[in-house]
Amino acid sequence: MTKHTLTTATVALGMSAGILTTGMAAELAIIHDAEQNILQEEFGEQWAKQDAEISKKLAELEKKHGKKPNIIHIMWDDTSFGEVGIPVFNKIRGFDTPVLNKMGQEGITFTRMYTEPSCTPTRAAALTGRLAVRSGMYTVAFPPEGSGLPAEEVTIAEVLSEAGYSTAFFAKAHQGDIEEAYMHNQGFDEAQFSLYNQFPPIFWHRTGEAGAMTNGYTPEMTEKKYLVDSTWRPYGYIMDIEGKKGEQARETLPTTLEGTLENYRKLIEIHQEKALDFIKRKANDDKPFYLAYWPHVYDLNTQGQEITTSNSTPFAQNMERLDRHIGEILEELEKQGIAENTLVIAMADNGPMTEAPGAMYPNVFNGGKGDYREGGVRVAAFAQWPGVIEPGTIVGDIFAVHDLFTTFANLAGAKEHIPTDRIIDGIDQTAVLLYGDGQSRRDYYHIYTGPIHAATIKQQFKRVWLGGRPGLVKNDFYNLYQDPREERGMMAQMLWAWGPFDMVKKRHDQMNEKYPFTPTRHGVPFTGITNLRPESIQYQETVRKTMETGK
Amino acid sequence: MTKHTLTTATVALGMSAGILTTGMAAELAIIHDAEQNILQEEFGEQWAKQDAEISKKLAELEKKHGKKPNIIHIMWDDTSFGEVGIPVFNKIRGFDTPVLNKMGQEGITFTRMYTEPSCTPTRAAALTGRLAVRSGMYTVAFPPEGSGLPAEEVTIAEVLSEAGYSTAFFAKAHQGDIEEAYMHNQGFDEAQFSLYNQFPPIFWHRTGEAGAMTNGYTPEMTEKKYLVDSTWRPYGYIMDIEGKKGEQARETLPTTLEGTLENYRKLIEIHQEKALDFIKRKANDDKPFYLAYWPHVYDLNTQGQEITTSNSTPFAQNMERLDRHIGEILEELEKQGIAENTLVIAMADNGPMTEAPGAMYPNVFNGGKGDYREGGVRVAAFAQWPGVIEPGTIVGDIFAVHDLFTTFANLAGAKEHIPTDRIIDGIDQTAVLLYGDGQSRRDYYHIYTGPIHAATIKQQFKRVWLGGRPGLVKNDFYNLYQDPREERGMMAQMLWAWGPFDMVKKRHDQMNEKYPFTPTRHGVPFTGITNLRPESIQYQETVRKTMETGK
Repeated sequence: MTKHTLTTATVALGMSAGILTTGMAAELAIIHDAEQNILQEEFGEQWAKQDAEISKKLAELEKKHGKKPNIIHIMWDDTSFGEVGIPVFNKIRGFDTPVLNKMGQEGITFTRMYTEPSCTPTRAAALTGRLAVRSGMYTVAFPPEGSGLPAEEVTIAEVLSEAGYSTAFFAKAHQGDIEEAYMHNQGFDEAQFSLYNQFPPIFWHRTGEAGAMTNGYTPEMTEKKYLVDSTWRPYGYIMDIEGKKGEQARETLPTTLEGTLENYRKLIEIHQEKALDFIKRKANDDKPFYLAYWPHVYDLNTQGQEITTSNSTPFAQNMERLDRHIGEILEELEKQGIAENTLVIAMADNGPMTEAPGAMYPNVFNGGKGDYREGGVRVAAFAQWPGVIEPGTIVGDIFAVHDLFTTFANLAGAKEHIPTDRIIDGIDQTAVLLYGDGQSRRDYYHIYTGPIHAATIKQQFKRVWLGGRPGLVKNDFYNLYQDPREERGMMAQMLWAWGPFDMVKKRHDQMNEKYPFTPTRHGVPFTGITNLRPESIQYQETVRKTMETGK
Repeated sequence: MTKHTLTTATVALGMSAGILTTGMAAELAIIHDAEQNILQEEFGEQWAKQDAEISKKLAELEKKHGKKPNIIHIMWDDTSFGEVGIPVFNKIRGFDTPVLNKMGQEGITFTRMYTEPSCTPTRAAALTGRLAVRSGMYTVAFPPEGSGLPAEEVTIAEVLSEAGYSTAFFAKAHQGDIEEAYMHNQGFDEAQFSLYNQFPPIFWHRTGEAGAMTNGYTPEMTEKKYLVDSTWRPYGYIMDIEGKKGEQARETLPTTLEGTLENYRKLIEIHQEKALDFIKRKANDDKPFYLAYWPHVYDLNTQGQEITTSNSTPFAQNMERLDRHIGEILEELEKQGIAENTLVIAMADNGPMTEAPGAMYPNVFNGGKGDYREGGVRVAAFAQWPGVIEPGTIVGDIFAVHDLFTTFANLAGAKEHIPTDRIIDGIDQTAVLLYGDGQSRRDYYHIYTGPIHAATIKQQFKRVWLGGRPGLVKNDFYNLYQDPREERGMMAQMLWAWGPFDMVKKRHDQMNEKYPFTPTRHGVPFTGITNLRPESIQYQETVRKTMETGK
């Protein structure tokens, strides 16, 4: 079965029913992963009919509000499923998330929202609609990095810009430190964003409040008599920059050895203010807007933080602050009278970082950040769209973070701007938002850890590829309904699934061969920033030397 | 500080406020565990005031309905917290419990309801209002047993009978096989109940559907040439008997070697019918009623069970059937017009039996049946009382299964019938039912595994006594808010709690010395049953010989 035959069949159906819209034609031109073609063959007719209904419904909404819907994607770090938005767990964990609880009660609670296992990959997947491994963004890099999201990737900001959306990015991008990867160079009209994750400003420095948790980063902490390379530590890293489409960037709050945690704390508030300000500015504009607000959340340093929860970890405070911040965003939508024309997705980017000191613990699933087990990739996620989403919807379907790309494009009438020369893993899941549980067009998900295909989920079953040995030895199979914590591998009971899973992998591998992964893009960091510090120039040198060595 | 000074102070307060009711005086005569005296000293005045309000409120309800409230206590086996009654988990586990979900949404969801770690002890604690270790009922016995709940224990049925309640017990008692332990000899007007747990009829037999899982119980499965004692296996066990207060019992459906699983399956339906019939008969009686309906739930044998859930374990089917059965009970209350004058508590008796084949898995906490970890003792529990309980209440307070004893007594105006010559661990928790979250009068719980004091919970903290070694080595402390799954012992961080926990244990041990535990009551089984089978008489012989050997 080829993509072509499917296309022809479904187009024929659409045409005979007189319902083939531009969006539907665009959808059929998109190259999805092999598994989706199987589903398309089974369900294509049904979906085409439903798409016609959806188009009608969206057109009515557009007529009512005078423009396409605004889209806000809020995504934060490292949170265990259950940690937020489920009232029973607030009692179990000893802190409160009333805003996200309300979001769940008045919108959608996802129970199988899958992400990549760590922040850089999940963010790349959301931006590109593709498994992170396809864009080379499969790892979480730390300074000195010298790599990032390739310019050739087409982001959701580019797709929505083409369709006339105003676009903005605030807070944590973590998409690398090379110029082509900057958010304002990747389609966003305006952006203020961080190049790396939170660890540098929270943990690395010696003075100010960060000093409480430092572990060797600062020069004093070394026996200098044993030959000490003063350029080895990445002192000149740049935490946060801002820029506008087509313009140069500038560093915002410098992360010198002094006062980094204080600056990081300021950044959390600044990003929040920027997000609110963007909403205020664009609320009554002719153009709809897309806001990617991916706030920094955690601040694991207790110093200077008032501890007010029974849970009494800094992380609990962080979650309560996040919840309040999201509350401010939702209130602003109400205040501006645009809540009913705005889809808000709020979700974590991956599971808890259980290695972080005294901070993050699993609630339901096993595993955490970096792990292919459910705890790493099955995240807290909620959607709000008053008047469109049925209140209190709990979705048991599989949904993937890269589906947001295609779904947002559909809502924006922008599907024809999705590139058709590469695999787009993201499926259009508008039906889930409009019709709720049982409407997902996906029953599979491939989990990569770094560049390695670690596991595949199909329906309620999961097969772990990583660690499997050739022959019939130690290959883990799980029934996730029975054993959501993946505690008892059931290869023997599930040998019926051996062959079917092999087929899924074979199809996936064949597609990957046809459309090879883009290698990780390397480059000199921090070009295109107007106010570079001397340490940052030194850092550039380190990366440049490494690149030359490799030649 | 002695019990007496507290009593005097509080009585003085009550008298000066002119609010000392019979119930309040009775409460003050009850001997609680040492920890409660500490709380009484801190909060006694506040509680006395609240008790006056509560008495008024209950008197108004009695006036409205013309009698005291009916009380139904539904308690079933071995269920992981989250397994039932929380919609998000229905999606995670792949089966539905709409009735219990509704109960949680319209009543109380408990998040810290603690039980004993296994069925016999939990049931003894609920019946007597005391830690099971105090009545010698600390273990789960299997045939041949020859022991049971001592006659001297005062059960909730006796207390409520004194206050004019009609009382009935149906389904799984598991309180032993000696005559004094039979439910109709322990205060219930009428009873049909099982003496042991589900394993004998489900697993042991060779024929019929039980044959699928047998493992050596039947005579054929033995090499007879190596001297085979034909009396060693407890062939004559009696699964289920019925009786009325003051009368002899009779065996209902015999569990011969043939057809036991079929009979067990019939029993599940019979007990349900009996419970419904009791409600119908007593609904419009002058007397209020107390119904202990502790249904058999599980049936781990797939044979003859239609599998209709995605979860596809027999256990999921069992849970769905339980949920339907509870739904029938609640519907009957509506039909009879007595829902608003009936408190229903629905709860599991302990955590999942993770050893059972392909059946039970943890959802949130670690550990299961038999374990002092949260997974063993922190159970799914819900309360319904329309018009009294605030809908959607989620209770984060500690509540213990033995608190139901004292709470039921208070609702029935029967506190003066609670014995005052022994420790009653059960605290009157009426305030939680009437006023919701944050109203518990308990912030501690002692966990026993068998006769061993395994762990103590105080507030959100837990100290594990079992396995601790003298000196400062390997003593487990947990902060349950941070680490609900008890995965990372935090002795070092919690050394501040070393001394305070020691004090709690010392006080508890001192009280135990003053009021010693009743030894396990032994006796000849099956006396007082009119229709004994020859195998059961043989079984009696085995026990009698053992008792004589011990002399």
